[in-house]
Amino acid sequence: MINVGVVGATGYVGEELVAILLRHPGVKLTNISSRTSGGQKYSDSAPWFKGKTDIICESPDINKIAAKSDLVFLALPHTASMDFVPELLKKGKRVIDLSADYRIKDLKIYEKFYAGHKDKSSVKDSVYGLPEIYRAKIKGAKLIANPGCYPTASILACAPLVALGVADPASIIIDAKSGVSGAGKKVAEAMLFPEVNEDFRAYKVNKHQHAPEISQEISKLAGKRIAVTFVPHLLPLNRGILATVYIKKSQKSKDKSKNLLQLYKRFYKNEPFIRIKEEGSFPRLKDVAYTNFCDIGIEDCAESVIVIAAIDNLLKGAAGQAVQNMNIMYGLPEKTALL
Amino acid sequence: MINVGVVGATGYVGEELVAILLRHPGVKLTNISSRTSGGQKYSDSAPWFKGKTDIICESPDINKIAAKSDLVFLALPHTASMDFVPELLKKGKRVIDLSADYRIKDLKIYEKFYAGHKDKSSVKDSVYGLPEIYRAKIKGAKLIANPGCYPTASILACAPLVALGVADPASIIIDAKSGVSGAGKKVAEAMLFPEVNEDFRAYKVNKHQHAPEISQEISKLAGKRIAVTFVPHLLPLNRGILATVYIKKSQKSKDKSKNLLQLYKRFYKNEPFIRIKEEGSFPRLKDVAYTNFCDIGIEDCAESVIVIAAIDNLLKGAAGQAVQNMNIMYGLPEKTALL
Amino acid sequence: MINVGVVGATGYVGEELVAILLRHPGVKLTNISSRTSGGQKYSDSAPWFKGKTDIICESPDINKIAAKSDLVFLALPHTASMDFVPELLKKGKRVIDLSADYRIKDLKIYEKFYAGHKDKSSVKDSVYGLPEIYRAKIKGAKLIANPGCYPTASILACAPLVALGVADPASIIIDAKSGVSGAGKKVAEAMLFPEVNEDFRAYKVNKHQHAPEISQEISKLAGKRIAVTFVPHLLPLNRGILATVYIKKSQKSKDKSKNLLQLYKRFYKNEPFIRIKEEGSFPRLKDVAYTNFCDIGIEDCAESVIVIAAIDNLLKGAAGQAVQNMNIMYGLPEKTALL
Amino acid sequence: MINVGVVGATGYVGEELVAILLRHPGVKLTNISSRTSGGQKYSDSAPWFKGKTDIICESPDINKIAAKSDLVFLALPHTASMDFVPELLKKGKRVIDLSADYRIKDLKIYEKFYAGHKDKSSVKDSVYGLPEIYRAKIKGAKLIANPGCYPTASILACAPLVALGVADPASIIIDAKSGVSGAGKKVAEAMLFPEVNEDFRAYKVNKHQHAPEISQEISKLAGKRIAVTFVPHLLPLNRGILATVYIKKSQKSKDKSKNLLQLYKRFYKNEPFIRIKEEGSFPRLKDVAYTNFCDIGIEDCAESVIVIAAIDNLLKGAAGQAVQNMNIMYGLPEKTALL
Repeated sequence: MINVGVVGATGYVGEELVAILLRHPGVKLTNISSRTSGGQKYSDSAPWFKGKTDIICESPDINKIAAKSDLVFLALPHTASMDFVPELLKKGKRVIDLSADYRIKDLKIYEKFYAGHKDKSSVKDSVYGLPEIYRAKIKGAKLIANPGCYPTASILACAPLVALGVADPASIIIDAKSGVSGAGKKVAEAMLFPEVNEDFRAYKVNKHQHAPEISQEISKLAGKRIAVTFVPHLLPLNRGILATVYIKKSQKSKDKSKNLLQLYKRFYKNEPFIRIKEEGSFPRLKDVAYTNFCDIGIEDCAESVIVIAAIDNLLKGAAGQAVQNMNIMYGLPEKTALL
Repeated sequence: MINVGVVGATGYVGEELVAILLRHPGVKLTNISSRTSGGQKYSDSAPWFKGKTDIICESPDINKIAAKSDLVFLALPHTASMDFVPELLKKGKRVIDLSADYRIKDLKIYEKFYAGHKDKSSVKDSVYGLPEIYRAKIKGAKLIANPGCYPTASILACAPLVALGVADPASIIIDAKSGVSGAGKKVAEAMLFPEVNEDFRAYKVNKHQHAPEISQEISKLAGKRIAVTFVPHLLPLNRGILATVYIKKSQKSKDKSKNLLQLYKRFYKNEPFIRIKEEGSFPRLKDVAYTNFCDIGIEDCAESVIVIAAIDNLLKGAAGQAVQNMNIMYGLPEKTALL
Repeated sequence: MINVGVVGATGYVGEELVAILLRHPGVKLTNISSRTSGGQKYSDSAPWFKGKTDIICESPDINKIAAKSDLVFLALPHTASMDFVPELLKKGKRVIDLSADYRIKDLKIYEKFYAGHKDKSSVKDSVYGLPEIYRAKIKGAKLIANPGCYPTASILACAPLVALGVADPASIIIDAKSGVSGAGKKVAEAMLFPEVNEDFRAYKVNKHQHAPEISQEISKLAGKRIAVTFVPHLLPLNRGILATVYIKKSQKSKDKSKNLLQLYKRFYKNEPFIRIKEEGSFPRLKDVAYTNFCDIGIEDCAESVIVIAAIDNLLKGAAGQAVQNMNIMYGLPEKTALL
Repeated sequence: MINVGVVGATGYVGEELVAILLRHPGVKLTNISSRTSGGQKYSDSAPWFKGKTDIICESPDINKIAAKSDLVFLALPHTASMDFVPELLKKGKRVIDLSADYRIKDLKIYEKFYAGHKDKSSVKDSVYGLPEIYRAKIKGAKLIANPGCYPTASILACAPLVALGVADPASIIIDAKSGVSGAGKKVAEAMLFPEVNEDFRAYKVNKHQHAPEISQEISKLAGKRIAVTFVPHLLPLNRGILATVYIKKSQKSKDKSKNLLQLYKRFYKNEPFIRIKEEGSFPRLKDVAYTNFCDIGIEDCAESVIVIAAIDNLLKGAAGQAVQNMNIMYGLPEKTALL
């Protein structure tokens, strides 16, 4: 039984984490905390938990959290995680951080898109928690930087083509569309219902903070530094990300024809949460919503490839993937509590 | 040509007012103002107006407004209108106020639901701007208290039965459902897209500030003081109010059978914006959205009547009805700019 | 281990049933069938099941179904269940029927709202599967008539007041609002996305087939025959029913004041799936969506009571309640697979 | 006064056409027709027209239509227009066809994506009704092939870059997203509310019938034959298309830096319905819904350009553009009835 804590339990991601951990047979959820709802019954701030748990949500106190936990999930806004990670690690706790704070290895890039970093030394030891790419390292990790939602869908869409040299990584264009829960419970006029409903818009065009995260990981797979083109859009729905990716084939791959669908199936053949669509069939958000699956469809054009990937941004894009990482770290069956 | 000003031009209702007034052939829109966007081009804060108008949105200044206007529309939050009305009236301007400030004649009730009143003397002279009931008074009015959105739908649903003594006004139950624009651009967590989308909820159950407004008007029609039961709900859509009203028949009307559908058709026979549905057919929001119509359907049960009324809350429930009142005040054809 | 079959596995309710039964530790799902997708892999017609199950969906064949099942769930359209029930019962199988075919005891009423009945003798032995009212009978039942979605919410809202004589059952008005999945995958113009989105409408005003089902059950609780007023509306969202109920207090209850909230809490105190909201707080669909809970809020007015109940129409209103009934029938913990 | 007829008046596009033509001061709408609602009052099949018009919807009869019309709008499904066009032209009528039947000049391509063509000779004389490109030809046209909704947004996004040689037309990738009304009132399971709401999906990936239409027009602008990459997606909302376009710069344009925003402003400077967004600002559907505007935003990347265009698919993408074409054909101010 792993003793587990969740910090930031009242955000959209925090709620999903608590829901999964409550039904996880290998976990004891010993403590949850939140700056805004400390001291309350959790089911008072998140009424859908009434009848499921009587747990109290505490104000976050690192010593108390550490005393009760083997593993701590941090579901905090960017820049807030750095206040917790160093001390938790020092006390010998394992940490899965769902913020961006430990994802970007190049701190200049981090500081350009987020803020000054207060825990630089931990950054280089963190493991990027994308199981399909880093499973071996995740097993022994002390600190997991859980991937962003857009990067999860985008990297999983591109990885086989890039890793196998079939595509030109410098040509990658990612046209991504996200549901609104991806923005968290941020109270802003632009997120009011009448401003989003019946609307659709691009935002942070080619300037989103997830672009360098994706570029970092694609660069590692490619073995050279590239920068992707990335345009996110806001969908008038609650949950889900769909990324439509356009990639030019590499010269060598144009020469000999390959069955790209088979290539994807082989690349992901042991992955419990990757589902490759059959030819002519493409993912839809409905099939992945409320699941930890990533569905991928491939269209082989003459000179280029179109790959479409879909995930639930709160699960495979956040809380679900975090628990998948925990399962790997503790040698549990990877699907536990996630099917 | 009437010189017209709009104060509060950047809210949802203000934008609708400006849109109607710009296409109104009898109006010159000489000034619009807003506390939040003063000094900007209007189309910068409301980009859908780009290519339609180059008007500048000013900071509100009563003297300037008065100098440029024969008639002023106030599309302000409740309690803010009282700061404008007395001086505008003193300067001989006519005013159509879309807030609640001048609707409630009993100031004790106003102060219970809103706040202390700073312009009590104007309240008793204001005319409740529901043309179907008060057209004659509206013609000569200096100050119109434009009805609330829920009251417009609710009163129009009940008026024929109450005015003709067919129903027992004390039995009125109004189950009302509103789209989200009814709440204005209020930035609150409860109004964020993920909190409203795929949700439906009652709020202020039997405690909403529109209940006494409805009760006041039904009481006048009934000739005795009654209080309606009123439960509002929040619909996950942008525009529209649908009120389902349940009323017991009065004793005398149970005795002799009447054709209630004909009764409604006769009562509203000269009304340009009331549409009575045929038997077995009922209103839907789609048919009234983006129009100034109120659609009404009637189901005659043995002992009681079910009446369903639908309006666009921003038009017949606010900006459209305000312009309808202006057309009446200035002797213009009532449908001008409203079809 | 109970061997279980599902007939009608590809409708919205059927899919929810399969999802619950797959994760139920006391069940072996031995067969699923569907007239439209017989012979296919289930995950081909319902792709969100890919990676969860490889089960094949058969064409329905009563002998095969009976051979493989101890218990059969029928998730069929109304009038189709009658073709399966008699033979399954004859072969000693237990049946939970989710259609309306065995709910209405008065066959004249059934035949008025549905069609001619082909299995009249089973109707009188069926048990109405609302656990909060009929748990004892459900235990030993051979044939469960699983309640309709509107009736579940409506009856649970009214039951305490009616059973304890606090309210006048003849005064009950139910203003109900349902998400679109309640209509099933019926392909009709009125159910197209642009016809429902941004719309809201009442339908079958005081003529819906669920009205007599509700009246039947309220009459039993009241000990006298009454007919409720029932108006359903269509919400532009996928899942959930919210019923707002208006009831006059009975004379005796007006005399002595009671704490109605406490009364509800006591009435439902051992119920695992009923959650009573605290004073001034009311249910919202978001809290019950994807759960088997029924949330209930109460507003005590002087002469009357307003009760609001919310459920997920596909779970507590259909598949979830069906499994709850199964758990009771087989002596399993009632919450199994439902939390 | 132009005498005008509308064939196909009860589809989504037909209804928008009738609404615009009813308020058009230079038009007399003498006849509307529909195969499904012939002989009915139009406001019976489209109740939102009640109180606006008493016009009767006829069954389509070419002789009667011709006798009453100078100009006929055909708002028919693809392949149905060919049955009307030849005879109407023969009788000297002008025709604006909103189907795809006369858009594709290469009949082999038309027949691959649609069906056999029955009126080949008219195809070569038809004028592609995109005013921003073909205004001069539209003036004298007898037969307008009104552009598709996706092509309108896509071509307007690309035209300045391609026409001025700034971009490489062969590199064009169009990631397009459309609201559901674009599919018309087609009754299909995939278009049911629960199948679209909270979902998002690509469809006809690189195989959509609008791709050759876009390629044809871009090829003409480029002066060489190219084929665009085009992926359409279905948005869970009623109205609007947003196209995100990715284009590589041409070699010569990479050499000398240009201000692309200024280039767009100059290219479209006299266009009444094109609005170019300022730097860093991008279109949203809300600003163009219910208008005839096309909003365009430009992001100049080092080697490539991202252009985002948004329109209302029923107006600038269909009925609005058709009336804009009529205004041009008859020498009326181009904005008449469209602001």
